[in-house]
Amino acid sequence: MKLKVIVPIISDIFDQDAVTEIKQFVHPSTSIDVCHLDYGPESIECEYDEALCVPNFLEKAREAELEGYDGIISNCFADPGVKAARELLNIPVVGPGEASMLNAALLAHSFSIISVLPNVVAMLENNAKELGLSEKLASIRSANLPVLEVSDKAKLKESLFREMKLAIEEDKAHALILGCTGMLEVAQDLQAELKHLGYDLPVISPLVAAAKMLESLIAMNVKQSKLTYMNPPMKIRA
Amino acid sequence: MKLKVIVPIISDIFDQDAVTEIKQFVHPSTSIDVCHLDYGPESIECEYDEALCVPNFLEKAREAELEGYDGIISNCFADPGVKAARELLNIPVVGPGEASMLNAALLAHSFSIISVLPNVVAMLENNAKELGLSEKLASIRSANLPVLEVSDKAKLKESLFREMKLAIEEDKAHALILGCTGMLEVAQDLQAELKHLGYDLPVISPLVAAAKMLESLIAMNVKQSKLTYMNPPMKIRA
Amino acid sequence: MKLKVIVPIISDIFDQDAVTEIKQFVHPSTSIDVCHLDYGPESIECEYDEALCVPNFLEKAREAELEGYDGIISNCFADPGVKAARELLNIPVVGPGEASMLNAALLAHSFSIISVLPNVVAMLENNAKELGLSEKLASIRSANLPVLEVSDKAKLKESLFREMKLAIEEDKAHALILGCTGMLEVAQDLQAELKHLGYDLPVISPLVAAAKMLESLIAMNVKQSKLTYMNPPMKIRA
Amino acid sequence: MKLKVIVPIISDIFDQDAVTEIKQFVHPSTSIDVCHLDYGPESIECEYDEALCVPNFLEKAREAELEGYDGIISNCFADPGVKAARELLNIPVVGPGEASMLNAALLAHSFSIISVLPNVVAMLENNAKELGLSEKLASIRSANLPVLEVSDKAKLKESLFREMKLAIEEDKAHALILGCTGMLEVAQDLQAELKHLGYDLPVISPLVAAAKMLESLIAMNVKQSKLTYMNPPMKIRA
Amino acid sequence: MKLKVIVPIISDIFDQDAVTEIKQFVHPSTSIDVCHLDYGPESIECEYDEALCVPNFLEKAREAELEGYDGIISNCFADPGVKAARELLNIPVVGPGEASMLNAALLAHSFSIISVLPNVVAMLENNAKELGLSEKLASIRSANLPVLEVSDKAKLKESLFREMKLAIEEDKAHALILGCTGMLEVAQDLQAELKHLGYDLPVISPLVAAAKMLESLIAMNVKQSKLTYMNPPMKIRA
Amino acid sequence: MKLKVIVPIISDIFDQDAVTEIKQFVHPSTSIDVCHLDYGPESIECEYDEALCVPNFLEKAREAELEGYDGIISNCFADPGVKAARELLNIPVVGPGEASMLNAALLAHSFSIISVLPNVVAMLENNAKELGLSEKLASIRSANLPVLEVSDKAKLKESLFREMKLAIEEDKAHALILGCTGMLEVAQDLQAELKHLGYDLPVISPLVAAAKMLESLIAMNVKQSKLTYMNPPMKIRA
Repeated sequence: MKLKVIVPIISDIFDQDAVTEIKQFVHPSTSIDVCHLDYGPESIECEYDEALCVPNFLEKAREAELEGYDGIISNCFADPGVKAARELLNIPVVGPGEASMLNAALLAHSFSIISVLPNVVAMLENNAKELGLSEKLASIRSANLPVLEVSDKAKLKESLFREMKLAIEEDKAHALILGCTGMLEVAQDLQAELKHLGYDLPVISPLVAAAKMLESLIAMNVKQSKLTYMNPPMKIRA
Repeated sequence: MKLKVIVPIISDIFDQDAVTEIKQFVHPSTSIDVCHLDYGPESIECEYDEALCVPNFLEKAREAELEGYDGIISNCFADPGVKAARELLNIPVVGPGEASMLNAALLAHSFSIISVLPNVVAMLENNAKELGLSEKLASIRSANLPVLEVSDKAKLKESLFREMKLAIEEDKAHALILGCTGMLEVAQDLQAELKHLGYDLPVISPLVAAAKMLESLIAMNVKQSKLTYMNPPMKIRA
Repeated sequence: MKLKVIVPIISDIFDQDAVTEIKQFVHPSTSIDVCHLDYGPESIECEYDEALCVPNFLEKAREAELEGYDGIISNCFADPGVKAARELLNIPVVGPGEASMLNAALLAHSFSIISVLPNVVAMLENNAKELGLSEKLASIRSANLPVLEVSDKAKLKESLFREMKLAIEEDKAHALILGCTGMLEVAQDLQAELKHLGYDLPVISPLVAAAKMLESLIAMNVKQSKLTYMNPPMKIRA
Repeated sequence: MKLKVIVPIISDIFDQDAVTEIKQFVHPSTSIDVCHLDYGPESIECEYDEALCVPNFLEKAREAELEGYDGIISNCFADPGVKAARELLNIPVVGPGEASMLNAALLAHSFSIISVLPNVVAMLENNAKELGLSEKLASIRSANLPVLEVSDKAKLKESLFREMKLAIEEDKAHALILGCTGMLEVAQDLQAELKHLGYDLPVISPLVAAAKMLESLIAMNVKQSKLTYMNPPMKIRA
Repeated sequence: MKLKVIVPIISDIFDQDAVTEIKQFVHPSTSIDVCHLDYGPESIECEYDEALCVPNFLEKAREAELEGYDGIISNCFADPGVKAARELLNIPVVGPGEASMLNAALLAHSFSIISVLPNVVAMLENNAKELGLSEKLASIRSANLPVLEVSDKAKLKESLFREMKLAIEEDKAHALILGCTGMLEVAQDLQAELKHLGYDLPVISPLVAAAKMLESLIAMNVKQSKLTYMNPPMKIRA
Repeated sequence: MKLKVIVPIISDIFDQDAVTEIKQFVHPSTSIDVCHLDYGPESIECEYDEALCVPNFLEKAREAELEGYDGIISNCFADPGVKAARELLNIPVVGPGEASMLNAALLAHSFSIISVLPNVVAMLENNAKELGLSEKLASIRSANLPVLEVSDKAKLKESLFREMKLAIEEDKAHALILGCTGMLEVAQDLQAELKHLGYDLPVISPLVAAAKMLESLIAMNVKQSKLTYMNPPMKIRA
């Protein structure tokens, strides 16, 4: 099984770490390739960035299908381009945000998302609403770290841990989701530390959730519904 | 008051008619300018088209603000780029879909949208959900006309009328919205014909609704909330 | 265009100020006339007051239609008599509460209403629910000022400002609505002061929102749906 | 226990039958008195009628409390004046619409209301929404009988039976509510006839549901919350 | 009228007190019998306990119908076995949780439940959701008393009072429900004490609410819908 | 990875086929063991059957954890005992109903479930409501086959195909879920046949969806939240 992870930004900083993170959780026989964009934003932190990353993401997604990949991940928590790619392609396309919210809905009565900046809160709440999971969304909190600073793991874990405690104690979150696919290598540690504190709840890494969901869909031989995501009509697109 | 209507497609076919339609309903002192895209899709009939039109739409929107326009309309019923433009700009940005649904929610207990193709139904239902108006959305029906064929007014009116009757009689719609901003010059006639049939209900032209809403917002000196639509962080966007 | 503002109380204290407020925002060619009730409550601060003001409001509304007005505003945030008047009349009828909530839903992800007394909170939450906008209603706060004391502008602004800060900081409101149509002359100042504080969000004056909405509906030649608001059957009404 | 049934219309046609209907179901020791209005509409079939009946209904309700009644029923399915009366009084006030919907929600997964005329559908859907039971409301159908014709029991039963079958077979109703408190003496027969047809479901008479609910509230020594229905502020009400 | 109260635990500690509590509120002619389980849990404080109590509860319920009882109460706030018993029986079955939430929805704009332990919160929130009343559920708080300690009335009242004040002041509850049917003899006192504090709101005893609801249903000659609760198919059940 | 599938009925008819079905989709290294109940119902077709199967299911689940299994599936679409087992165990527990609905929510805008008998419809709608996915549930249809007759594959496929076409064409389903875990070996064929008809949408086998979801959760090292599913308090459970 060959999965293609498209990092919808022009920087390569997440490419290698994304593969490393995923490889720890998928089956050895699952191959993971990664790429980033040729043009678009340096990171995704608002609706504007999301809008700018989609066109090249869709080109990369189409290439990946032609190259024979079995499925595609849009490697950003806001799931940019996922809906459009589902129209364009006949292989499953998964977003980390939707995959992790669906896992959280199964595992807990409520969940919170710890995101990067406040700029994305409304956008993510709308994504939860479209998915139908608003009722289970306890809160979206911000670690107040720009995407490009999440690589400082110590600082990242500290801010995430602080907000996670607040999400549990003040917002009644029963499960936690990392709200940025750049927040790598920390989910399992945070889950362990919270358990040590007496909070035995799942901490979900969105990229991993997307990869596992995609593996499952491919294994089950199902893909997006073409009644929801109809093939785009032929026309000039300059 | 100067409004800029951006038709988010590369064709100019709607430019003149859009201005003509709006001018019948806005105040004489309101000036309307229109433009279309330099690159993007020929028409918008799916998520894919919407994704492709946004980058150049945002450039045109930013130019318009610099040129001193007081407000902007994204001239497509799916409201492409509206959220991103609200982050980018400090003048109000309005979408025809949201404007017409909000008007319909005021005027009636329920409303239906008569759109072009079935491809857009899920996308528009999601827009209604984000706006909070799903409960009032009786149905979305398709006239089964591609956007580029709506200029045949006779054919357009015939298909709209057929679907409008069904929306009223089968879906319990109490108000009707034209689901494409290319459906020009027909709303008032259809409203009159339906009234003649005993159905005295509003038929809303989305472009007109957007223009009037925008005129009002500018007159009231309010714009999008910068707590929802925060200014995009500085970064490289290639 | 001739609009009739009916202040649904027996006092004339708001008559002149209401006209003054509206005239700053509507088009010069729009004429505004105002009247108050012959019998009913001195002010509206609960369901009981609302019930008592409706019968004479409806008589005044019917007179206004006969006198050739193009549209009617029920000048109270609770929108008393609006639904019944829509059945009775064939010109558009608008309530300030619904008009301002619909504007806020367009401009922001969430909004709060700052009302007069706690007595009206449940009533207003029900209005938001009927309109379909509960999901976007962050909170309803009370300035704890009786309606008849809102004319003390300094005191009014101070209490509104205090509650608005709390609505933003504690309830996550992204837009603000003045919850009483007697709160005149202060919306723009409060919007400026909050912006100065770093909160660049819309502050909506409900009476102005209603007037602009009504102007738009009349210009668009649409009115309430007679499928929702059917003409009342003939009968004895003593 | 003394209950006062206020028929919020100026006609006495329902007075005696209402008492007769209730007496079959309440406890022998419960005394029922009835009255109708001095001024108001001849029947209630729209928002306009509802608005006109409330002021005198509230006067009658206040008198009833002073005369020592233990609770009050507003004898119309639309529950006119119930909220305002709850503010005004310190004895429980119950509406037949809310009481029957709450019973239906307990007994079945979904319910339909068979009302008189289409004019009231939106009003009743809003009542269900305020009560929080929209999800369980399968449909509201009209028997297309004016209120003043429901006394023809044969005709009434025939139209109700026809719509009830449709509600079960087309709208998936699992319980049925008579949508007018003038539909007396027929609920039990219709329940038996439907059971004979293989549809063993409850058919609820709203007036009876209100009387039993009121008996229970009084026995339990609870009344409306004064945090929701605060006492009206003192003021001039001319 | 003969009601059977089944206490779905193996202990008899609540048997007598349950009857005593009910007898104060039902009509003298209503006879109440009580029984507890032969096998199952000692108390119900989680999904696991609920699961274990149902099989014997259903046997007891079936016996009760054969013995000629007119209706049945499952004497636990979580309403264990109520749905299954409704399938099995042709007499009405009522749960204290649903009965009290429906009463609260009638009497107030919002309500809170004060339960025993945090273990049951998600379970009770799901019950409210199934009933359709989530919107009115302000909060579920825990008195942090195990079920088997609620017999210490002084301690019980103290913890309930503390949480009730918080529910009113922090969660905006307008009505209060005791979240355990073992919390006997205290509802009326707590209602009086809260009123003395200025909070004039209903405090509902769930067992009493269930008994009164059941009395009403029997008097009205209605029972659960057999379209929702179909008779179980014949099969081997070992 | 060792998964235990517990068929919560006393018959062994599904044991072997369940393993066969799963083995086609899970990874070769995943071992699947299956068992059925010692006491309980012969099949699950109503709330009553569900109630009877849970106690022994929970005993089997606890044994499985002690025997070192990594996760557990309750092999019935109604997910019996899943919540209670999550309290009891520290390994993940998954239900086929929830797993397939979550997959469908990812792949399509709406989904329908084709179940066995009408008896289960309300129960399954409640499960969807608890999961938060009611908005996406287009319909639940019944193939009108008792569980013990689903082994006749030809008959099964014919009835499923008929209802699936209706779900797509009348209920607007964009994805389809088999509503019984006994409906084995047919999902892929039905998906192919519907695609051949022009309906390119996913047909989800609930048992397979559960197995893949469980494999993913175990690989991700997450389990149910112990804040939602707290460990049951110690007590006598006879």
